[in-house]
Amino acid sequence: MSDQRKAAQEFAHKNHSRFLSELKDFISIASISTDPTYKNEMQAAAEFVAEKLRAIGISNVEIMSTPGHPIVYGEYQDAGPEADTMIVYGHYDVQPPDPLDLWESGPFKAEERDGYLFGRGSSDMKGQVLASLFAIEAALLQGNLPVNLKFLIEGEEENSSPNLEPFIEKHKDLLASDFALNPDSGMLGSDTPSITYSLRGLAYFEVSVQGPSHDLHSGLFGGTVRNPANELSRLISGMHDNAGRVTLEGFYDKVRTLSDEERKELARLPGSDELLIEATGAPSPWGETGFTNIERAGARPTLDVNGFISGYTGEGMKTVLPAKASAKISMRLVADQEPDDVHNQLVKYMETYTNPGVTWEVDYMSASPTAISDVNSPAIQALVKAMETVWGKRAIFNRGGGTIPVVAYMQHILGVESVLTGFSLSDDHIHSPNERMHLDTWYKGIDALIHFIYNLAE
Amino acid sequence: MSDQRKAAQEFAHKNHSRFLSELKDFISIASISTDPTYKNEMQAAAEFVAEKLRAIGISNVEIMSTPGHPIVYGEYQDAGPEADTMIVYGHYDVQPPDPLDLWESGPFKAEERDGYLFGRGSSDMKGQVLASLFAIEAALLQGNLPVNLKFLIEGEEENSSPNLEPFIEKHKDLLASDFALNPDSGMLGSDTPSITYSLRGLAYFEVSVQGPSHDLHSGLFGGTVRNPANELSRLISGMHDNAGRVTLEGFYDKVRTLSDEERKELARLPGSDELLIEATGAPSPWGETGFTNIERAGARPTLDVNGFISGYTGEGMKTVLPAKASAKISMRLVADQEPDDVHNQLVKYMETYTNPGVTWEVDYMSASPTAISDVNSPAIQALVKAMETVWGKRAIFNRGGGTIPVVAYMQHILGVESVLTGFSLSDDHIHSPNERMHLDTWYKGIDALIHFIYNLAE
Repeated sequence: MSDQRKAAQEFAHKNHSRFLSELKDFISIASISTDPTYKNEMQAAAEFVAEKLRAIGISNVEIMSTPGHPIVYGEYQDAGPEADTMIVYGHYDVQPPDPLDLWESGPFKAEERDGYLFGRGSSDMKGQVLASLFAIEAALLQGNLPVNLKFLIEGEEENSSPNLEPFIEKHKDLLASDFALNPDSGMLGSDTPSITYSLRGLAYFEVSVQGPSHDLHSGLFGGTVRNPANELSRLISGMHDNAGRVTLEGFYDKVRTLSDEERKELARLPGSDELLIEATGAPSPWGETGFTNIERAGARPTLDVNGFISGYTGEGMKTVLPAKASAKISMRLVADQEPDDVHNQLVKYMETYTNPGVTWEVDYMSASPTAISDVNSPAIQALVKAMETVWGKRAIFNRGGGTIPVVAYMQHILGVESVLTGFSLSDDHIHSPNERMHLDTWYKGIDALIHFIYNLAE
Repeated sequence: MSDQRKAAQEFAHKNHSRFLSELKDFISIASISTDPTYKNEMQAAAEFVAEKLRAIGISNVEIMSTPGHPIVYGEYQDAGPEADTMIVYGHYDVQPPDPLDLWESGPFKAEERDGYLFGRGSSDMKGQVLASLFAIEAALLQGNLPVNLKFLIEGEEENSSPNLEPFIEKHKDLLASDFALNPDSGMLGSDTPSITYSLRGLAYFEVSVQGPSHDLHSGLFGGTVRNPANELSRLISGMHDNAGRVTLEGFYDKVRTLSDEERKELARLPGSDELLIEATGAPSPWGETGFTNIERAGARPTLDVNGFISGYTGEGMKTVLPAKASAKISMRLVADQEPDDVHNQLVKYMETYTNPGVTWEVDYMSASPTAISDVNSPAIQALVKAMETVWGKRAIFNRGGGTIPVVAYMQHILGVESVLTGFSLSDDHIHSPNERMHLDTWYKGIDALIHFIYNLAE
């Protein structure tokens, strides 16, 4: 171990209680982005981050305004023009704490119990933001870093980041980097380090079928005009085949094939039927034939009805032949599918298969591209090595089934892949009462990030 | 024309203004069965009917209690033990008048305008009840009738007659008859007399499919467990084939075949595509291959989704994989289908075709049997002849697509077929503001009922 690396680790170890105290201060700011009442707290949290960045030696720190809550920017360029630039992502906002009466200690008055720190944002993600800054602080105190840095710490993640994409688009040059560090992901377990290297994209639609112009009496008219609820059911039914594959023409054309190596790697993840049944309460697993539960959740695209409504849905009976049926239908996409392609495929499907006697509409509500990082990139390999040093085992590579828009923006606007990590655990109760963070894992995480920084030089 | 028949007609013609005045009195009683506030008015309306029955010479008139509103009973036995007994059905309750501000004159203050009498219940069906009683009054004044009579005038028709079936069951012997007159149906037009000789039955279900035990994140779990909304859509889709036929095994086994003669008769009804499109606003007709619009509406069974709900149905998006999907599904049945058979067929279908990975339930919410009368019966032929005398044209035989439970109870409990008629028109705005009755058609209707009574002797 180099002297600098060693000194940085020692500094971090000596400062655990100060780190914890700073995190408690950060948590005490009720930065709830979804509630306009907390506008001042949002500003205070942005200032807290900016102040911390300045304190550890980051330059050009600025609280940049957006139409919503501001974004904190900063940079470190002393690694020199030859070195790579890493952009560190984070968010300083938190979920509302409701229901308050279920908290055992105040959500904004962080408290240590049983090896955890309890408080809103402890895990998601004030703890993760500060872990990154403490690691950088520890390393900067030892001299120049092997990598340049940029920071993009936003305040609207818990509110779907409505202003992030235009911000990144507008400040493309300012934010230009070589790769991103995003610690908003978690570990599989306190003893199971993991790195998420891909996320699914999303294309979300509302599909409506209209039959008669108004609800009809099903006795007088049943059997004489097409029932839009029956017709929409038929259309949805046709969107899968018996092998669980989506039938939209061309849907799989751009799907990147899983290599044997990747499948072997994914097989290391805990994904038994028993675990899935326990997590979902479903009677049994289901999915595309030929793939494991883990592959289905992260490496294969899906089509799900998220909501369906038609006709009379109250108590009791109403003998109505509905005028209209609507379903919210979304597809989770994997590299290299494009939301716009899927939109075209869905429209084509409706054009081809909708029967006469009804009209239809497809409302393209939202799109998020897929994201995938090369697991053999120097940045990811630097983290793998760092985790192996700290936990004594190789990190598991994971494909996330969900969508983190910022990762896709970074990839599609800035052209950078993300190193997705973080030290939250699945039982941290994020978004719920008694959110907590496992302190031992957090301290190890700071160690790992220090190693990561120095590994980038190798 | 016999002397009695002629005298009865003359009496009726001379008493038009008195008839109208009695109808106005009947309408002035706000007998709204669905609103407990009107309990006194309901009692008053029952007494009005009982009083009228007594006044025209009906015996054993009684206001019989039920768990809800009372039923008015009465009988006339002077035709002698050899003569047939006709049971006359009617209801003295009306729909609520809301919205009140759309009425041009008070709903309970009947007013003549443009050849119509406006008021709640004028058409549905106080006018029809009194038309029957006036015809009987006119005939009774001329001497004994050729038919014995029983009366069953209920007060809960507008509230789905919850107590009628047990009442008929309990008083089976008292109500024993040879056929029924039910004037709660209408004419196709003021110049187009018609007789409804069959009604569809109804079997109503709620079908639920449960997948996971709770709503899941569609990113984390999409593609790994069966989505109950997709699955219910698939099941519903499979309930019809491409020819618009219901696929439940055995569904058509008991369906009575339409004779060529019956199809020829039904072809007299106005049922063009243009009319259907105008009435429904649907882009085009649809239905079971090989049948006309009219046949589909009245003579063939159907399966319709009346309502469907699952997952998130509010504004915007929620990326949820729903725990449950439910659809209200009902079948309109034709003779000689049985609701219980259809229930068994639906359960069998779900057992056979539901995929693993979900559980399901079928809630059998309601059943009404089918009803059909022989159009060559003496009673129907007596009415055909009566209508021909009055309107100068042969009545059109119609199959009603809806369900009138009392007609089915009469058929299945008392074993009597109904002569379904009435002098309401489709533009009478029943159940709506400005309900009205066409006076000229009403007076002709009274004439026709007088002829009908005398025709029964032939």
